[in-house]
Amino acid sequence: MIGGGSGAFIGAVHRMAARLDGQIELVCGAFSSSPEKSKETGQELYLPEDRIYDTWEDMISQEAEHNEGDRMDLVSIVTPNHLHAAPAIMALEHGFPVICDKPLCLSIAEALEIKDAVEKSGLPFALTHTYTGYPMVKQARHMITSGELGPVRKVVVEYPQGWLTEKLEDEGQKQAAWRSDPAKAGKAGAYGDIGTHAANMAEYVSGLQIIKVLSQMSKVVEGRLLDDDTSALLEFKGGVPGVLICSQVSAGEENAVRVKVYGTNGGIEWCQEDENTLLVKRHGAPNQVYRTGVDNSYLAEAALVHARVPSGHPEGYIEAFANIYRNFTMAVRAYFSGSSHNPTYDFPNIDDGVHGMALVDAIVESSIKGNAWTSPKY
Amino acid sequence: MIGGGSGAFIGAVHRMAARLDGQIELVCGAFSSSPEKSKETGQELYLPEDRIYDTWEDMISQEAEHNEGDRMDLVSIVTPNHLHAAPAIMALEHGFPVICDKPLCLSIAEALEIKDAVEKSGLPFALTHTYTGYPMVKQARHMITSGELGPVRKVVVEYPQGWLTEKLEDEGQKQAAWRSDPAKAGKAGAYGDIGTHAANMAEYVSGLQIIKVLSQMSKVVEGRLLDDDTSALLEFKGGVPGVLICSQVSAGEENAVRVKVYGTNGGIEWCQEDENTLLVKRHGAPNQVYRTGVDNSYLAEAALVHARVPSGHPEGYIEAFANIYRNFTMAVRAYFSGSSHNPTYDFPNIDDGVHGMALVDAIVESSIKGNAWTSPKY
Amino acid sequence: MIGGGSGAFIGAVHRMAARLDGQIELVCGAFSSSPEKSKETGQELYLPEDRIYDTWEDMISQEAEHNEGDRMDLVSIVTPNHLHAAPAIMALEHGFPVICDKPLCLSIAEALEIKDAVEKSGLPFALTHTYTGYPMVKQARHMITSGELGPVRKVVVEYPQGWLTEKLEDEGQKQAAWRSDPAKAGKAGAYGDIGTHAANMAEYVSGLQIIKVLSQMSKVVEGRLLDDDTSALLEFKGGVPGVLICSQVSAGEENAVRVKVYGTNGGIEWCQEDENTLLVKRHGAPNQVYRTGVDNSYLAEAALVHARVPSGHPEGYIEAFANIYRNFTMAVRAYFSGSSHNPTYDFPNIDDGVHGMALVDAIVESSIKGNAWTSPKY
Amino acid sequence: MIGGGSGAFIGAVHRMAARLDGQIELVCGAFSSSPEKSKETGQELYLPEDRIYDTWEDMISQEAEHNEGDRMDLVSIVTPNHLHAAPAIMALEHGFPVICDKPLCLSIAEALEIKDAVEKSGLPFALTHTYTGYPMVKQARHMITSGELGPVRKVVVEYPQGWLTEKLEDEGQKQAAWRSDPAKAGKAGAYGDIGTHAANMAEYVSGLQIIKVLSQMSKVVEGRLLDDDTSALLEFKGGVPGVLICSQVSAGEENAVRVKVYGTNGGIEWCQEDENTLLVKRHGAPNQVYRTGVDNSYLAEAALVHARVPSGHPEGYIEAFANIYRNFTMAVRAYFSGSSHNPTYDFPNIDDGVHGMALVDAIVESSIKGNAWTSPKY
Repeated sequence: MIGGGSGAFIGAVHRMAARLDGQIELVCGAFSSSPEKSKETGQELYLPEDRIYDTWEDMISQEAEHNEGDRMDLVSIVTPNHLHAAPAIMALEHGFPVICDKPLCLSIAEALEIKDAVEKSGLPFALTHTYTGYPMVKQARHMITSGELGPVRKVVVEYPQGWLTEKLEDEGQKQAAWRSDPAKAGKAGAYGDIGTHAANMAEYVSGLQIIKVLSQMSKVVEGRLLDDDTSALLEFKGGVPGVLICSQVSAGEENAVRVKVYGTNGGIEWCQEDENTLLVKRHGAPNQVYRTGVDNSYLAEAALVHARVPSGHPEGYIEAFANIYRNFTMAVRAYFSGSSHNPTYDFPNIDDGVHGMALVDAIVESSIKGNAWTSPKY
Repeated sequence: MIGGGSGAFIGAVHRMAARLDGQIELVCGAFSSSPEKSKETGQELYLPEDRIYDTWEDMISQEAEHNEGDRMDLVSIVTPNHLHAAPAIMALEHGFPVICDKPLCLSIAEALEIKDAVEKSGLPFALTHTYTGYPMVKQARHMITSGELGPVRKVVVEYPQGWLTEKLEDEGQKQAAWRSDPAKAGKAGAYGDIGTHAANMAEYVSGLQIIKVLSQMSKVVEGRLLDDDTSALLEFKGGVPGVLICSQVSAGEENAVRVKVYGTNGGIEWCQEDENTLLVKRHGAPNQVYRTGVDNSYLAEAALVHARVPSGHPEGYIEAFANIYRNFTMAVRAYFSGSSHNPTYDFPNIDDGVHGMALVDAIVESSIKGNAWTSPKY
Repeated sequence: MIGGGSGAFIGAVHRMAARLDGQIELVCGAFSSSPEKSKETGQELYLPEDRIYDTWEDMISQEAEHNEGDRMDLVSIVTPNHLHAAPAIMALEHGFPVICDKPLCLSIAEALEIKDAVEKSGLPFALTHTYTGYPMVKQARHMITSGELGPVRKVVVEYPQGWLTEKLEDEGQKQAAWRSDPAKAGKAGAYGDIGTHAANMAEYVSGLQIIKVLSQMSKVVEGRLLDDDTSALLEFKGGVPGVLICSQVSAGEENAVRVKVYGTNGGIEWCQEDENTLLVKRHGAPNQVYRTGVDNSYLAEAALVHARVPSGHPEGYIEAFANIYRNFTMAVRAYFSGSSHNPTYDFPNIDDGVHGMALVDAIVESSIKGNAWTSPKY
Repeated sequence: MIGGGSGAFIGAVHRMAARLDGQIELVCGAFSSSPEKSKETGQELYLPEDRIYDTWEDMISQEAEHNEGDRMDLVSIVTPNHLHAAPAIMALEHGFPVICDKPLCLSIAEALEIKDAVEKSGLPFALTHTYTGYPMVKQARHMITSGELGPVRKVVVEYPQGWLTEKLEDEGQKQAAWRSDPAKAGKAGAYGDIGTHAANMAEYVSGLQIIKVLSQMSKVVEGRLLDDDTSALLEFKGGVPGVLICSQVSAGEENAVRVKVYGTNGGIEWCQEDENTLLVKRHGAPNQVYRTGVDNSYLAEAALVHARVPSGHPEGYIEAFANIYRNFTMAVRAYFSGSSHNPTYDFPNIDDGVHGMALVDAIVESSIKGNAWTSPKY
């Protein structure tokens, strides 16, 4: 693992997600830019001294020298955005599959370099767009893309948060600091942090790519360097209209990512606040409440294989995250054993990452051009 | 009453709303462009023969000749949009206060003529933007405009419906037919029918006028003459960003108008599907659930006086509608008695109507100009 | 109308309910035991002086002397429980149909006298168990009694309120005073006031009578004369088990009557806090959300004819109440015209009232006997 | 681990819960009464051959012979109820702390033997009443027992399931088979399986013990050997009334354990279907929505330390389960290091288990005696 020292939020989540299914064991790490802090974190995690590294460069190069079976099997990157590309590329070049936090990196240029490394190496690469790991999101995607609800006509995705309603980056809050700093987060603030998730969800569930955006990026809190509230009109492939709303200044909101997709004879609605429920809307018939559960045999296989317990036992964020790790692990095993990976066990990949970065560019460009329609380049 | 013959939806609602509080009695009507149908409706409503008129012109002119006390006290207009302006103006010119269904009329030109008639006559005029009549919407407006939740930073309003997912206007459905016909509905379809409600709600609750719009109007169902799905980026007075989404092709949706307004330290969310609840969001504190009820003494006066029963006894759409009628009746009484009307008993007025028509124009113009920012002219 | 002077809660509700559909006009009243207060109320309601009576005895005897067409058509009784029997009987004896607030009266003896008067007169009689008037409650009853969800196996009904968590009867609160006074309310407090509603709902939706009860009546607030919290185990016809819980000391609760009935392959759940939704539970399939609306053609006729507006426009407590008045009015018209009344337009009748009083007796007796199973006598 | 071979439900849950926080590693197991199946499961779990045992007796005796540091640190028992007591006692006698699935065992006699072994050994012992591990359940307990909502007046707990609406035990469903077999489950079916959870929740949140019960146990499905639907009136210490309802034949229900506790000035409501929300009811003030989250600083410490991620990232059943494992691990560490365990990190213990078995006896006895009040003996 690269990153995830104490004080980090997402590193601990990655570790819990990786552990949950008993398929992955943390064997080494470079947890911080500070060697002392890295050592401290590694010790807390019960790692042997010689597998706690001062730098990620050390970790990759030294692990690569271990024998197969002794060395790490894959690399997890949980650093801020500006520290994704270099370690990802080096890991891939040394033969390690990579699972990386989102967004992919700082710029489309970096994104293409990572893509190049993935393609050259042929190794599995995963991007942790967590929300796609929920069983009910899998079910939603299945119902929409199978055509059960008719051709898609409208997509609405919202991701409201309130935690940046005050200027936390001035108060030493580490999460706020890097996420609102263009050097570490990239060109986009709220859009980069959560808008990228929202766009990914909209595409994943609808099965349609966004081909044009018209955005309005706002810096609502005075003095903030990046957008903290962004809305966009969208056009999906086939001319389907959509709307994306993300905000980190919606005071009192937590993390209620919500996606609605409508076809000609019905629609779906999913919200992370009620994560195990998928509301299926039916034109001319009662709406239905689909629920996570290994015993809910009415669910599609894609939903069933991403549940762990019978219905009524809530599966949450960590389980969704773990589904990405589990599926990625299966892909890594398949890769090393030369077998093929079952596509039902899907996860966001390098193309999702590159397209996501192209959307960041398009969103920013649209806003700069005075809210004009702009197409992502990938 | 003008309009509201059998087969009409909103006429019956107006009559129930008018009756509810026992302050208004239906005394006469011209219920249809067909004299036979008008007569039939009048008889069903237990009206005496001589107060059922063949035309609205007859009704206004003949009622005006009755003695005070014998003639009607006010006129309710519940016809399709193209038949609002002429009867409203004639009624006002004959000394009758007018309560009119929304949107105000067909065009800004007509709107200004009505405004002129209102001003010349000095008579009360109400526009039935129903949703502003809900007690919890009054509470929301109070909490936002009093500054309790801080200066407004973001407004999101949605109005999804699914009933036009098929091309009902080709199947003889009367409601669909006129609402999708530019000659009767005006320049806008979904926006005119429900987007005007949504815009009015956003302004009413936030206390801020919309000063710029950037819209995307879609005719999702092939062959439809007017938009059936419209989204718009908004700018409110003071630069506050917002989003408006309305749709009549969101299959499986009913009528879930929802408004969210965020200030610096909290926000409100109200949705008609849970009409007696106002969710009050608090930054750094638990969210709160405000509820309709004459006994909920924590509510603002504006909410309390628009409730009829103790908490836990749901008050619905007809009660909200009746609040507009009740308040308008109070204003009419105040007018005729020369006293002043208590502004807590508010209702949408002619200025709301004119501004609403200006927004229709701006929305349409923005879309035609390729989704460019456009300001309403009033 | 008998009762319903100013300060009363339910009288005003009856009047709104009676007015809503334009089928009933208030023509006379004895609104209070104080003639002055009765006159005042009558004037506020725009009644002519000579139709405002000092006593209900005067009203009944004098109205009976008017010619048909001039006299009142029916009597509405909205007084506290101890003033139901005498006016109901006198009205019936003078040829007036009666609609009476619940519970029927003070005792089973009184109940049987009223029943006797109903049977002798042959006149329509209605009891306002409001909750049975909701369209979704009609739908629930239809789905259960039609056998669509299989034979009934379990019934749970709850009615929590919090308004008597303090001893309001000592603070001059009029509603609390009579409802906690055995001389005016009868043998039961919370059970009499709201438990009777809950029992009626359980029987109405399940289509099964309660044949045995085992109750635990508590006087939670010190010094209270009647129960303020009652729970009971139930046995329905056919041996079906059930539970009834009612409380007026559940601090923070409003009026959330909730009924759940389970059959062999599914169940229903309805709660007044989400009055336009019926949750239909399906074994082995997604649950469904049935919704009120004249346009929801999947609903049973019994639900459709009790809705007034299209789906998504909430219909509340007053509309449910108005359904009882509307149906009773139809029965009265049928009676006077000698035609038969369509049973789809049902309403609680004298037998429901007598059985309800028998259940009050059984609940009280069970509690007194140390929580032993007790059968209602009717 | 003892039990938890393939086909088992709860064993896999225990393993995920144990893994989640990286404090526990599975080192050995006797996973089935069939040595072959045990071996198979152990191999799937990547255990070395010599730590997979044929029987639990072998596991305990052989592990006890390993050196400290090499042997297992604690034993997890996840077998059906009839196989709890013997391994628990043997493990304790060999110096191993025990974490055991609920209910504690088959009978009060067995329960007291286990208690004896716990007391003699002085070792930590945990019982996995999962629901007490949810952060919002901790918050509820804190708010009630701190007196913030006033002295407790009423408790209602429900646990409806629908999975036994058909006679699954006849269809070879393994879970149904042992849970409805008195030899393996004990005297109570639905009550033993889920009613014990419900009773524990009611006591945990209210902070009050149940001192009397009056139960109605039903075998709703013909031919079933144990109750599949049980309701009970309760009396808590201090005379507080309560109701418990559990059912496994409520068709269409999942696992919606719900607890409501009311004090004099408010109450709490928690339901596992919305596991990260605690509804706090306030008399005379808006209700509040408390939410799980390490950043929700308004929460009590007891809730905060049982959350893992910021608010809005749902934590589910496995996380609640993991809280019990985490806390038990802390107690084990404290025990072996001779330090004291921080009581904020609580978990259900042997006394909860013994009391729970006494309640099983009381519930069964009450039902047999014709639904008479019965007191648990411990």
